[in-house]
Amino acid sequence: MNSALITIGDEILIGQVTDTNAVWISRQLNKLGVRVGEMVTVSDEARQITSALDRLMSQYDLVIMTGGLGPTTDDITKPTLAAYFNSKMVPHPEAQEKIIAYFKKRGRTMIESNLRQADVPEACRALTNAHGSAPGMWFEKDGSILVSLPGVPYEMKGLMEDQVLPAILKMVDVPGVVHRTIMTQGVPESYLAAMIKNWESDLPACIKLAYLPRPGIVRLRLTVIDKCAQDAEQLLKVNIDKLLNIIGVHVFGYDDITLEESLGLVLKERNLTLATAESCTGGNIARLISSVPGSSAYFSGSVVAYENRIKSQVLGVDSSALESEGAVSKEVVEQMAQGVCRHLGTHTAMATSGIAGPDGGTEEKPVGTTWICVCHGDRMYAKEYLFWGTRERIIDQASYTAMQLLRRLLLDSL
Amino acid sequence: MNSALITIGDEILIGQVTDTNAVWISRQLNKLGVRVGEMVTVSDEARQITSALDRLMSQYDLVIMTGGLGPTTDDITKPTLAAYFNSKMVPHPEAQEKIIAYFKKRGRTMIESNLRQADVPEACRALTNAHGSAPGMWFEKDGSILVSLPGVPYEMKGLMEDQVLPAILKMVDVPGVVHRTIMTQGVPESYLAAMIKNWESDLPACIKLAYLPRPGIVRLRLTVIDKCAQDAEQLLKVNIDKLLNIIGVHVFGYDDITLEESLGLVLKERNLTLATAESCTGGNIARLISSVPGSSAYFSGSVVAYENRIKSQVLGVDSSALESEGAVSKEVVEQMAQGVCRHLGTHTAMATSGIAGPDGGTEEKPVGTTWICVCHGDRMYAKEYLFWGTRERIIDQASYTAMQLLRRLLLDSL
Repeated sequence: MNSALITIGDEILIGQVTDTNAVWISRQLNKLGVRVGEMVTVSDEARQITSALDRLMSQYDLVIMTGGLGPTTDDITKPTLAAYFNSKMVPHPEAQEKIIAYFKKRGRTMIESNLRQADVPEACRALTNAHGSAPGMWFEKDGSILVSLPGVPYEMKGLMEDQVLPAILKMVDVPGVVHRTIMTQGVPESYLAAMIKNWESDLPACIKLAYLPRPGIVRLRLTVIDKCAQDAEQLLKVNIDKLLNIIGVHVFGYDDITLEESLGLVLKERNLTLATAESCTGGNIARLISSVPGSSAYFSGSVVAYENRIKSQVLGVDSSALESEGAVSKEVVEQMAQGVCRHLGTHTAMATSGIAGPDGGTEEKPVGTTWICVCHGDRMYAKEYLFWGTRERIIDQASYTAMQLLRRLLLDSL
Repeated sequence: MNSALITIGDEILIGQVTDTNAVWISRQLNKLGVRVGEMVTVSDEARQITSALDRLMSQYDLVIMTGGLGPTTDDITKPTLAAYFNSKMVPHPEAQEKIIAYFKKRGRTMIESNLRQADVPEACRALTNAHGSAPGMWFEKDGSILVSLPGVPYEMKGLMEDQVLPAILKMVDVPGVVHRTIMTQGVPESYLAAMIKNWESDLPACIKLAYLPRPGIVRLRLTVIDKCAQDAEQLLKVNIDKLLNIIGVHVFGYDDITLEESLGLVLKERNLTLATAESCTGGNIARLISSVPGSSAYFSGSVVAYENRIKSQVLGVDSSALESEGAVSKEVVEQMAQGVCRHLGTHTAMATSGIAGPDGGTEEKPVGTTWICVCHGDRMYAKEYLFWGTRERIIDQASYTAMQLLRRLLLDSL
C-alpha cells in the first residue's frame, strides 16, 4: 500500500505555522509498512485542493488530508470534498449528539457554528472525533481511499489512533521493510561518518544507511529492504553490534527514544535524584527532563541562575571566582553543580554556563563558548565546549551535551 | 512571481524529522510578495526528484529545493541535478578554499568527503555557504529558476538571507498583498469567533480573515488582497482598531512577536525583574523567557520545584498547606510566587502547579487542573484552570496563560 499526504492551509504556505501533522502521520503509517511517497501542502482554495486530489488519488492507494475543518468561515475542505464526491451535506447524528453533550458537560454555551461541525458529505463514512467536534471522513473512489482529518494535532492523532490506523492495519500485509535507528550524541555528522567509514562500506547491499543530524544529536537509520528481509532482524543485530564496538560510548539508545528518556531510565534504575543549575540553557534542560511522563520519580527540581547574583546568593558560587574567572568558567560551573546538589538535596546534578549569543561574545570567549559540569556525589566532570550556530541551536547543543555527559558519568563511560 | 518548494528526504517521509525549512522559506518569500503555491516533500530518489522538478518547473517561476546535499553517501541531490541539467560536476574554487580555511581555522582534520562538498554541476551559479561546506546552487531553465540549498536549517537560512532573497527582491515588483496578524491569548478559537462575529461580517470584502490556533494562543490573520490594496494599511488600521474595542485585553501584539517577547518589553520598560517558580511547567516558562536575546536585562532566574520537598524547603511553602490543600491549590501556588520573589529577590514572579498527566489525575482534580499565580510586589492574582489535551499541550497552555496573566497584571488590565 502506497500513500500520500495533503496538508491544507494558507497559514503553512505563508510560513506562519509549521506542519507537524504530516511527520507524525508518516511515522505511524511507516510502522504499519505503508510507505509515504509524497507530501503536499496546498492553499485553502477549492481549485488547489481538487487538483492535488486528482493527481494523488490516481497514483496512490491511500491519501490522507488534514486541515480546513475548523468552525470558522475560512475552512473550506468540507464543501470542496462534497463537490469532489458529488455529494450533499448531511448532519451526522452521532457527532451532533457528541457536540451537544460536550457543551452540556462543560457548562459552556453552544453556538451555531459548533453544531455545523457535525455536518459531513453524504458519500463518506464519518469518523467520530473523541477530542473535538469536527468528525473525520473516510471516502473511497476508484479503488483509492481518501481520509480527511482536522488539522488540530491532538484531534488528528486521536482519530488516527482510534480509527484510521486500525482500519488500515486490517487492509495491509506487513511487508519486509525494517528500520532501526541508532541515537548518538557527542560527535558531529562528518566525524561520525569518518569513524564508521569501513563499517559502512562493509554493510550488506540490502541495508541502507542514512545520517539524520540535528543540534547535538546524530541519528543513524539502518533500513533493511525487501530482498533479504526474512533475516532482517538478525542481520541488523550483527551489524549494529559491530557498530557499537566503534562508537558505543556515543550511543544512548534506539528508535524513538529521546536522550531525556534514556537518562531518566539510568537515574530510575539506580534510585538517584537529579537537579539542574542552568545559566545559558535557561531552564531548557529542566523542561526536557520534566517532559518525560513519570520524571517526578527522579527529577527534584532546578535553579535557573540567569543573573550572576543568583549564582552566588542561591547556589553559593564564590563571588571571587565570578569576578576573577567570569561566569563562563570551570570554577563557576563546578560550584554551580555542587551548589544545586546541596541546595536541593539531590544525588546528581548538571550545570551549564555559556554565551548563547547573539551578543555577549568576546575575543577570548566567543559566542558558543560553554562550560558544562556534571556530578554524582563527589564524582565530578567539567568540560569546555565551543558550540556553533544560532542562540537556539547553542542552547540545544548545550542541553543534550549535558544530559549525555551525566549519563556517561553514571555509566562509567566517560 | 509564483513559487513552489521541494523538500528532499526519506527522513521526513518516514516521519523521523519535521520539516521546519519550508515554513521559514515561505515566510521570507511571502514578505517579498512572492506567493508559495505549493510545498512538496519527496524521497531521496532521482526519479522522484526529477518528476517533482518537471511538474513544478513548468508551473512556477521559482522553485526552491532543500536537502540531500550532505557529506554522506545517501545524499543524491547534486548528481540528480547534474543529470537534470545535462551538466558535469566541477569543483567550485571559492567553496573549496572556504572548506580548507574552515578546517585550518578550527584545527580539525579535513576528510575527503568534506572537500567533495565543493563540487557543483557546471550549469549552475554556485552560492557560497557562509555557515557550512555545501554551496547552494542557482539554475535557470525555460524562464524558471531553480535554487537548491542544504537541508541543515542554519546553512539554508544563511544562504537565503545573504544571497537568494536579495536576488529575488531585485526581480519582483512588490504586489499589493498585505498581511497583519493579531496575537491573542486566553480565549479559545470558537469563543473568539463568536465574540467577533459581527465585526467579522462587517469586514470589507477585500479583507480576508483566518483563525490560526495553537495551544494557548489564537492568531487572527487579516489579509488585504490586490483590489483595494492602495489604502491597505489604512483599511487594516481602522478594522483592527474596531477589533481592539472588543477583544483588546486578550491581544498581546502583532505579526511575528511572541508572548515571551511581548512580556519582556513590558518588564524592560518598567525596569522590573522576573523570576518563575515552576512545578508542572518544569522550567518551560524560564526556557521561553530566556529564549529571547537580551532577556538577561529582566530575567533573574527560576526555581523549578518539581518535588514537594523543594516547594517547602527552598520556596518556603507551608508544609501544612501542602498537606491540607495539596500541591495543586491556591494557597501553594500563591506561596510559591511570593517565595520565589523573596528567594531570588525579584520584583515580579509567576508560579504554576498542576497535573500535566498522563497520570496523577483524580476525580476532584483531573489531569489538566492547574493553578497559576502572578505577582508584582504585594499585588497578586491567582486562578485555577482546566487545560485540555496531552502533557505537552497542557504545559504549553499553562506557560502562555501565566505569561499573559503577568503581562495583564503589569498593564492593569486584569
